Amino acid sequence: MLSRPLGDYLSALRDATPLVHCITNYVAMNSTANLLLATGASPAMLHAQEEVAEFTAISGALSINIGTLSAHWADAMLIAARTAQEQHIPWVLDPVAVGATAFRQQLCSALLVHQPSVIRGNASEIQALNGLAGQGRGVDATASTHEAAAAAISLAQQYRCVVAVTGEEDFITNGTDHYRLKGGHPLMPRVTTLGCGLSALVAGFVAANRTQPLEASLAALACFSIAGSRAGQQAQGPGSFQVALLDALYQLTPEDLSTIAQMEAVHAV
Amino acid sequence: MLSRPLGDYLSALRDATPLVHCITNYVAMNSTANLLLATGASPAMLHAQEEVAEFTAISGALSINIGTLSAHWADAMLIAARTAQEQHIPWVLDPVAVGATAFRQQLCSALLVHQPSVIRGNASEIQALNGLAGQGRGVDATASTHEAAAAAISLAQQYRCVVAVTGEEDFITNGTDHYRLKGGHPLMPRVTTLGCGLSALVAGFVAANRTQPLEASLAALACFSIAGSRAGQQAQGPGSFQVALLDALYQLTPEDLSTIAQMEAVHAV
Amino acid sequence: MLSRPLGDYLSALRDATPLVHCITNYVAMNSTANLLLATGASPAMLHAQEEVAEFTAISGALSINIGTLSAHWADAMLIAARTAQEQHIPWVLDPVAVGATAFRQQLCSALLVHQPSVIRGNASEIQALNGLAGQGRGVDATASTHEAAAAAISLAQQYRCVVAVTGEEDFITNGTDHYRLKGGHPLMPRVTTLGCGLSALVAGFVAANRTQPLEASLAALACFSIAGSRAGQQAQGPGSFQVALLDALYQLTPEDLSTIAQMEAVHAV
Repeated sequence: MLSRPLGDYLSALRDATPLVHCITNYVAMNSTANLLLATGASPAMLHAQEEVAEFTAISGALSINIGTLSAHWADAMLIAARTAQEQHIPWVLDPVAVGATAFRQQLCSALLVHQPSVIRGNASEIQALNGLAGQGRGVDATASTHEAAAAAISLAQQYRCVVAVTGEEDFITNGTDHYRLKGGHPLMPRVTTLGCGLSALVAGFVAANRTQPLEASLAALACFSIAGSRAGQQAQGPGSFQVALLDALYQLTPEDLSTIAQMEAVHAV
Repeated sequence: MLSRPLGDYLSALRDATPLVHCITNYVAMNSTANLLLATGASPAMLHAQEEVAEFTAISGALSINIGTLSAHWADAMLIAARTAQEQHIPWVLDPVAVGATAFRQQLCSALLVHQPSVIRGNASEIQALNGLAGQGRGVDATASTHEAAAAAISLAQQYRCVVAVTGEEDFITNGTDHYRLKGGHPLMPRVTTLGCGLSALVAGFVAANRTQPLEASLAALACFSIAGSRAGQQAQGPGSFQVALLDALYQLTPEDLSTIAQMEAVHAV
Repeated sequence: MLSRPLGDYLSALRDATPLVHCITNYVAMNSTANLLLATGASPAMLHAQEEVAEFTAISGALSINIGTLSAHWADAMLIAARTAQEQHIPWVLDPVAVGATAFRQQLCSALLVHQPSVIRGNASEIQALNGLAGQGRGVDATASTHEAAAAAISLAQQYRCVVAVTGEEDFITNGTDHYRLKGGHPLMPRVTTLGCGLSALVAGFVAANRTQPLEASLAALACFSIAGSRAGQQAQGPGSFQVALLDALYQLTPEDLSTIAQMEAVHAV
């Protein structure tokens, strides 16, 4: 089913150490940078309207997360997304809490015009983004991944992009091909901004594997899934989990990823 | 003395997983979110003037911390505080370094008009807020908790709220009833923004226990006190302390809290 | 060669616990505060134009890092730097990714007018700052420390300041006297913003040792070098490394620093 072993995508990431331009929320900045560095990408956070276009243009990928939005940042996000579109640089949209306020909905609508390569969110966010009944009260997922699969496929077809719904079970689609992925650990939602970091990691994988955005994104999800499971085995709580997750991402091998695919932990829908 | 065992307040927090709208400083955002998630609340950080009123209105509580203040954020804090007051949503004020600059004093004066449910600060901040001789040079506590008790009682009576002074020893009052609480660990001031996180945790406890703001706030302080002591027993320094603190908050049981009360680690003044 | 044992500078830091006013990037704020607290300084992050002059004036030192720059912040950095210059308060410039965009180059040029006491950057940044062929693509060092030594000496002479180039090998100079320092660990570049934190720590050391900025800065670098080596010995990856680094900085003794100097781990060029 996969065109290449999943581990090849991790090898490509580490060979390229792609520069990922992150315009992300304040809560996630430090943990996102550390997640990327641990796995093998090179993060850079900057957001000034005076320089985002210049910087996006020299980046391997762009990752936009609207978590702690404000008007100036929204303007910068739009400039960066337009630059990415014009320069054919892959970019990822993480529509945090898009269902919660009108301000977020308006920005996401404007961002979608610039055709993200990948959208990653929790089930509530993907449903809200697709215009379905948004049940999201905030940043947590209250809808299940299963319920959001139809919304994800619809979004992927409408915007010709990859859509990843992550949660207890992940679902990822390009509108035609779909995968489900289990793994991770129940402590993951008890550590803040892991999903935000995953969005940026997806950007890194797609930067290093531009011809295969679906499989590259799946590889990023598989990294979190395997590393999360391993971290959970030795964690005493969310503090030690976060430490162990960074270590596990660093220690992860391409063989680990290829194995998970062969073991059919990844299923076609 | 307590109307219910202290552990009941923790049970209520975990049952409700209240959404805590945090408008807090950049330094504290990540650690505050993790402290809330570890204990059992659900944090959300957002601050745009375009959306704070909308979001405060759907939150269980609001927590405002003025640490890395700027003019736009000050405006948003005032909108959110007014919304909380109008909608009868509990809110907590953390007046970081209020004694250090005129800008902070002016904002805190304006925020107090909207009647916070709880004020939490270190001794220097509580004294400065009460208009007493501010000795605060910055974000550290240089006054002792003992010296700040009178200021806390005065503030609590003037604004009809709970005031918590935290430090080596904590003091908490609603103007009529007072408690002292020992515990914690000398490494706590060597980890940044634990006090900021505690303010947000107080907001979570009050959200889940709205009829008893004094005892709910005391329960939050007791969580930090017990978890801090336990983390200190296994820490090698501030790095491992922070990790162990999150694990200890996650592992904390209602019985742990009730026991500390019965053991009279909490004393009426 | 050294006027005092290197450990004396650490003793002075811990005796003075200098207040370090940090205007730094969002990614680095939390980790910088923790690095300073672990070692023995007292950090404070604030950046509003309304209050930076007032706060810089009561600080022991100022540390400016341009990582996540924007126009408002640039204005505040200039106010703070001018205040430091006027009040003879030592200040440190960390010119993150100065070679990447015109916006950064313009700001750094304007900041240099206010005569920093110390400039700390990676090799790419120091070369870009000196107007040499900037090869920096972002926040990572792609030039070697060795190649940047000439640029560092040139900058130090031009601005009469200390210049520190850090990386696998550190080079530090005041234009006349130079030191090289090895140590640290290969995991250090896999943890985000350690360099940013080091800049602020340099500010703390210079605040506590104002008459000897070169040796004080060298002591800060030596702390990172020794603590980094020790942390690396017990780390399983970047997550546990960061935890162990904070613990090691906390546990570091003046004797540790004096020993590294006697062992000639520090060499005059």
